[in-house]
Amino acid sequence: MTQTSATSTSRWRERAMRPVSATRSYVQGVASHSPARLALLAFMSVIALFTLLLALPISSKTGEFTVLHDALFTAVSAVCVTGLTVVSTAEHWSFWGQVFISLGVFIGGLGILTIASLLSLAVSKKLGVRGKLLAQNSMSTTASGTLGEVGSLLRIVITTSIVIQLALMLVLTPRFIVLGESFPTALWHGTFYAISAFNNAGFTPHSDGLVPYEMDPFILIPLMVGVFIGSLGFPVILVLLHFGWSFSKWNVHTKITIIGSFALVVVGTVGWGLLEWNNVRTIGEMEAGDKIVHAIFASIMTRSGGFNLVDQALMESRTMLATDALMFVGGGSASTAGGIKITTLAVLFLAIFAEARGERDVKAFGRTIPEGTLRVAFSVVVLGATLVATACGLLMSISSATLDRVLFESISAFATVGLSTNLSAELPPAGKYILAALMFAGRIGTITLASALSLKQRDQLYRYPEERPIIG
Amino acid sequence: MTQTSATSTSRWRERAMRPVSATRSYVQGVASHSPARLALLAFMSVIALFTLLLALPISSKTGEFTVLHDALFTAVSAVCVTGLTVVSTAEHWSFWGQVFISLGVFIGGLGILTIASLLSLAVSKKLGVRGKLLAQNSMSTTASGTLGEVGSLLRIVITTSIVIQLALMLVLTPRFIVLGESFPTALWHGTFYAISAFNNAGFTPHSDGLVPYEMDPFILIPLMVGVFIGSLGFPVILVLLHFGWSFSKWNVHTKITIIGSFALVVVGTVGWGLLEWNNVRTIGEMEAGDKIVHAIFASIMTRSGGFNLVDQALMESRTMLATDALMFVGGGSASTAGGIKITTLAVLFLAIFAEARGERDVKAFGRTIPEGTLRVAFSVVVLGATLVATACGLLMSISSATLDRVLFESISAFATVGLSTNLSAELPPAGKYILAALMFAGRIGTITLASALSLKQRDQLYRYPEERPIIG
Ligand SMILES: [K+]
Ligand SMILES: [K+]
Repeated sequence: MTQTSATSTSRWRERAMRPVSATRSYVQGVASHSPARLALLAFMSVIALFTLLLALPISSKTGEFTVLHDALFTAVSAVCVTGLTVVSTAEHWSFWGQVFISLGVFIGGLGILTIASLLSLAVSKKLGVRGKLLAQNSMSTTASGTLGEVGSLLRIVITTSIVIQLALMLVLTPRFIVLGESFPTALWHGTFYAISAFNNAGFTPHSDGLVPYEMDPFILIPLMVGVFIGSLGFPVILVLLHFGWSFSKWNVHTKITIIGSFALVVVGTVGWGLLEWNNVRTIGEMEAGDKIVHAIFASIMTRSGGFNLVDQALMESRTMLATDALMFVGGGSASTAGGIKITTLAVLFLAIFAEARGERDVKAFGRTIPEGTLRVAFSVVVLGATLVATACGLLMSISSATLDRVLFESISAFATVGLSTNLSAELPPAGKYILAALMFAGRIGTITLASALSLKQRDQLYRYPEERPIIG
Repeated sequence: MTQTSATSTSRWRERAMRPVSATRSYVQGVASHSPARLALLAFMSVIALFTLLLALPISSKTGEFTVLHDALFTAVSAVCVTGLTVVSTAEHWSFWGQVFISLGVFIGGLGILTIASLLSLAVSKKLGVRGKLLAQNSMSTTASGTLGEVGSLLRIVITTSIVIQLALMLVLTPRFIVLGESFPTALWHGTFYAISAFNNAGFTPHSDGLVPYEMDPFILIPLMVGVFIGSLGFPVILVLLHFGWSFSKWNVHTKITIIGSFALVVVGTVGWGLLEWNNVRTIGEMEAGDKIVHAIFASIMTRSGGFNLVDQALMESRTMLATDALMFVGGGSASTAGGIKITTLAVLFLAIFAEARGERDVKAFGRTIPEGTLRVAFSVVVLGATLVATACGLLMSISSATLDRVLFESISAFATVGLSTNLSAELPPAGKYILAALMFAGRIGTITLASALSLKQRDQLYRYPEERPIIG
């Protein structure tokens, strides 16, 4: 009887544990078989956790439960480092709600950086360019074997992220004290903005956002620097840490990303400044110097930061279109910035230049860009455009908002920018779920798609004869 | 004295003739050196001529001069077979004005077909696929040497075009007589609609457009057939004339174009029908059968025909977005349809499928599509998107129209479709010039760009080593 009882207990335990061990072996299987799928699962779990936390009464100022669509939207927006909001961060959420948001941003940002870096490493190893992608040979000295290499990469990514965010916090906190906040409040705001900036999240804990600080360089400059560094991506940061500013030693990825980033900042500043120069609803009545500061800030923030000094709904329609384009491009690969990424755009433009000059090879900085890379880049752009167009169509079916606002909000969600004409808050719950799905797809989709495509190169045993259809 | 006088007369004549002979040798030089540039010059001259004709008092109902921007816009719209209007074709233009418009459409359509066919021939010869592109070997039996080949091609193109337009006229005219029009009027309307349909121009000589005939299959079916045949393009029509419907004998270009055309008609019909099904401002209150007829008609016309049965401004916003996409794609290469063309879209999709399956080669129907073709296709899409986006930005700067209308009218102009929410007529003169430039660029630009790129293939003596940036 005792034995039977023991057996039945053990059987019971076994049965109870079955889902747990099944889950564990499922996760292990996924991890070894498909790192991209693991990334999706991990992000979904984190989002589910933060949705739960944000829905709890402790997270809201009123002490009531928050409805599911608002909690889920905010959790996705935080974990996908977007910054779109359906309720005011300062007014709806309690201190704990804001803590959960910044924690979600911190974990989400770190997750994106590590997953994207790992996938980049996997791609570069698979394609036989091991070590070249990341800091050229800086990795191989610290690592022997796969696990060591991965571990060392993760350690560098996590350490560097935290150090940069701590530095931003140490710069911002004293400024908030000078501006009259108590030490705990200033520390909290400094921490919140540091996390929000480096992770390109664009959440603000103040009800007026950054408008009170629109002329304060001690706030604006750290935010711009934090957003810009965060938007470069780890493959670039590692190269910069290793080689500093000796351009000739950089790999092609770093050269394209750095030059592209600066070029886009300049183009965005000039474009935004000219388009808004006489708009009295935004910067039209400011002095020239202030206009230029606003233009630089807008240019840096548009590609993913998501902080704003002027009401986006009051910009000229043409500025909204230009903003759409900048948002869609986004920042560097394996960064906290979203969009199709700077290298994607650059590769496509280099291909068009090569085509216009009648050259077979796509070249950059004395290197040939492989043909396969061009096709991956094109696939990423088509995926992005398709996602945005589908979301626009769906949103226009369920709301009466105009196309310019719908397009703006959709691209902002896809590219995890967070700039808004407040459409997110006005949409019915179905619209919030659509935008949440778009943020998730834009954040995780392009990374995993690009790496999955790059990893999936098959050998072929025979080729068909060539035939050329007429184009154009 | 006499001799001196004769000499001076001869000198005078020589001097007077100098611009003429200079022009002639310039044209000859351009023709042999750059056929694409000749095409541009020829189109500009024809447009200038028709602008002049339409501006004359004889062309307007009131017998007054028509202002330059309206005359130019209408001339460009006719010669570029677009069908956008700034004044009512039936109400503003006299009989002679309407004759000039249909003549402009006829000449423009023929010009596009011949130039595009010649450029396609040049590309196929240059790239060593001579004969394969057009009717496989059907050309080589009728032609010996370049001039014979070109002459025979032109003869086939012109004869076939005229025969099809005559056939359409012979079908339409009796119907107009049955509907109560006098013989001359019916003949005139039959001719006008025949030219307008085959050339995908979309002009209507009736003030209510096609609305009075919206349930008349004897009008609608010939128009749909005419527009569909015109949108296939000559490289396809030649293959069909030679091989009939034996699919396996067709070249890849024909297979892609025919399958793509039918697929887009089906997708367009289902999409348009579903999106508008319950829209009481358009087809919402009709019987199911009538709704389906409207959907089929809209689907066929959207890709370039430009005839419409329902007011485009009363469609749902989501239908306008879907229409934008169909218009942007357009019809077959070297056809009277505009847009980026079906093969361009197909090649890009095949490339993405290949990428998703991890295959190096882009394949279609047992043939490999050369890598260079993919890059030409991508360049055409980027050119198109850039033109449309630039025009939208400019139009939004000078008018207060909403983005959905501006985008709709811009894509309609770029893809020479002619569907309209009446924005063209509302714009200030500067806006009309922008749209006219867009029609011209969309009509001539993509053809000449694609052929110029395809012809401009250089050999290279050395290659750089490969290096792969991170994408996405
Ligand atoms: K953001
Ligand atoms: K048309």
